[in-house]
Amino acid sequence: MLTPDLLLINGLLLPEPGTALCIDPGYVAIRAGRITAIGPMDELAVPRAVQVHDVRGGVVLPGLVNGHCHAAMTLFRGLADDLPLMTWLNDHIFPAEARAVNPEMVYWCTRLAAAEMLLSGTTTVADGYFCMEEAARAFSDVGMRAVAAQAVIDFPAPGVPDPAGNIAAATRFVDGWQGRDPLITPAVFAHSPYTCANQTLRAAKELARARGVPLFIHVAETRDEQSQIRDPQGPSPVSHLDALGILDEGTICVHCVWADETDLEILARRGAGVVVCPQSHLKLASGNALLKEMLGRGLAVGLGTDGAASNNSLDLFREMDVCAKVQKVHSLDPVAIRAGEVLAMATGTGARALGFAGQCGTLRAGALADLIVVDREQPHLQPFYGPGLLVYAARGSDVRTVIVNGRLVVSEGELLTLDLAETMTRVRRLAGSL
Amino acid sequence: MLTPDLLLINGLLLPEPGTALCIDPGYVAIRAGRITAIGPMDELAVPRAVQVHDVRGGVVLPGLVNGHCHAAMTLFRGLADDLPLMTWLNDHIFPAEARAVNPEMVYWCTRLAAAEMLLSGTTTVADGYFCMEEAARAFSDVGMRAVAAQAVIDFPAPGVPDPAGNIAAATRFVDGWQGRDPLITPAVFAHSPYTCANQTLRAAKELARARGVPLFIHVAETRDEQSQIRDPQGPSPVSHLDALGILDEGTICVHCVWADETDLEILARRGAGVVVCPQSHLKLASGNALLKEMLGRGLAVGLGTDGAASNNSLDLFREMDVCAKVQKVHSLDPVAIRAGEVLAMATGTGARALGFAGQCGTLRAGALADLIVVDREQPHLQPFYGPGLLVYAARGSDVRTVIVNGRLVVSEGELLTLDLAETMTRVRRLAGSL
Repeated sequence: MLTPDLLLINGLLLPEPGTALCIDPGYVAIRAGRITAIGPMDELAVPRAVQVHDVRGGVVLPGLVNGHCHAAMTLFRGLADDLPLMTWLNDHIFPAEARAVNPEMVYWCTRLAAAEMLLSGTTTVADGYFCMEEAARAFSDVGMRAVAAQAVIDFPAPGVPDPAGNIAAATRFVDGWQGRDPLITPAVFAHSPYTCANQTLRAAKELARARGVPLFIHVAETRDEQSQIRDPQGPSPVSHLDALGILDEGTICVHCVWADETDLEILARRGAGVVVCPQSHLKLASGNALLKEMLGRGLAVGLGTDGAASNNSLDLFREMDVCAKVQKVHSLDPVAIRAGEVLAMATGTGARALGFAGQCGTLRAGALADLIVVDREQPHLQPFYGPGLLVYAARGSDVRTVIVNGRLVVSEGELLTLDLAETMTRVRRLAGSL
Repeated sequence: MLTPDLLLINGLLLPEPGTALCIDPGYVAIRAGRITAIGPMDELAVPRAVQVHDVRGGVVLPGLVNGHCHAAMTLFRGLADDLPLMTWLNDHIFPAEARAVNPEMVYWCTRLAAAEMLLSGTTTVADGYFCMEEAARAFSDVGMRAVAAQAVIDFPAPGVPDPAGNIAAATRFVDGWQGRDPLITPAVFAHSPYTCANQTLRAAKELARARGVPLFIHVAETRDEQSQIRDPQGPSPVSHLDALGILDEGTICVHCVWADETDLEILARRGAGVVVCPQSHLKLASGNALLKEMLGRGLAVGLGTDGAASNNSLDLFREMDVCAKVQKVHSLDPVAIRAGEVLAMATGTGARALGFAGQCGTLRAGALADLIVVDREQPHLQPFYGPGLLVYAARGSDVRTVIVNGRLVVSEGELLTLDLAETMTRVRRLAGSL
């Protein structure tokens, strides 16, 4: 074994969260952005490394994967809470976006989001918004892995005043970022079946297929969505997309709150990914997705925070907790979803939904070195009978160490890759001008 | 004004959370355990004080009130998750309690709970369990305000092997702690209508009335509870208690998940307090309480975490967030419960439920000096448009300063009143012997 760049020792390792696999105490060796070895301490053959971190008292697991976010919307966090969905959108969020969204805003507000996510243990995010050049630059600068998806919508949008140019703009973005930075996977985000015409949806998918990048789409988020699509008596939003030929393994359907068993059958047959955003679904009163059924069908279901305007947190620990609990009460079945299933959604299964199967969301030799250490030496994590506490008691602030692509970005709970005070000041200034 | 013991300056003050009242920047003066003055900085007349804390960048609000807990059950945190209620209780929790609960366990595990609660901003807890002498001692030692309620149940219980002695044991406890410590209010906790015979319930209430202390009781927690009371065709659990003469302003009904409109009418007429525990209701799949209707009737509704075995966190920030969100989705109405209403439940309204109206849960001259400072200079609390973020984005770990009864117990996020490492070690040792 070549000398590792970085060696974590004495951790309680959860290499595949959601499975019973646990190595305690164990080590992880990292070199050139990849995990090169992992195992129990008494099998550690190469004690030398450029850097050695003793993470005794810590739980080491794969970095969390946020399957859906609109990072720059941190600017609108808490701007308009507790409102009916259409009032929220039409009277608050859309006007604020029309006034405020520009490249500078996207850059700084995405930096703020990246800081929040990294500090709470998220190492990969699937982000969809406008002016994505700036978002991709922000993630790259901060050292966070991102699937950055340029939004396509049939309305005038920030950076794309004429919707006739929306596919061209997405194409320029994808071509500009493919192969440019190992942290950034460019992608396309067709906003939804009710804001994109059929030809736009088809063109977005063609672009994604041609470039071999993911396509994201909001679908079946609200009960009313059916009536917002052209033909209310027609097929469900999911079958509408299927009829357009949009659904395959490269498509990630976000929300799917109102996807029924027939829709799930379609998604399973096409191998499409799904991302649910439980807290956003609660806060906007969208509904409860059939999560148990999705997992039962073996769908690749990830967990997303959605944007900070509808959550209002980007902390996946909080998201995991709520995800498991709300499914239990919805079905009046405390066994409906187990902690391990949610841990898997936030790591390996979520990574699979985004096209990172075996690369992220797992600690194994050869995988990308994206991992976190959670400090369990705290009163709210005592006693620590098992990893269920990561779901039901841990907080994002319990994350002490974060490594992305082999690089230490959070150490002792401090972000090493950006000036937090400057970023907060810039965002506050933007907020003040709203 | 006499020289304050402690003066907080430059805070963003929320004196009555849930109302629009906000003083920014403001000061709070404290002397002899009470708030002596509060106001805007430019009206601060007495800049001298024994201690001055500049809390710039912090939100100052009343300490949170946890309306229901079984603190010593931290020992069972995560011991048995994701199980059907009766399996959880009969195969895991009850046997573990039978083996493990004794005075030493109650003392140390209550200390751990108190540490977790203080560090996350809870200054008052209503705690109900066995061996409550030890729990009261633990709260007193750590400097936390507690309504400590000795459990009464018609089964052999820790410290009360013969249930015939349960009222006598509760009497001894109440008499031993009344007037002994300003932080401790002794009380009685009749476990539930399905575990206490009518004569036990009546005797528990008589004791509480005679001593002028609160009576707590679990009621209408699960759908099945009706059938567990003697007469399944009889009245609802709430009307059963009413018929026994148990309900008045000194009785706090905990859970009330299955209390219907008729039950709420009874509770309102009697002026009884209510405490809901949303995360426990989710995790055990108990159901959703009619919270909007409870608040609409003006009931004094507090917020509780329940014990750590069914949550698994004692962090009221987490509880507030889930409380607001789950009510929205349950009714498919994003306006169902507003952030401010939940903030009030966790402060002033919850204090009212416990008999502390005007004393706790409020920042006003003359009130008890129980208050906390939340650091908003953090990425996940930026921008800070308003106090809704305390519900939808803040975490218990954002609490930097905690003052109970005028005493600084948490400073810079560090607990000053106990040795955390020793407490965690003692609890781990107890957990290891399970």
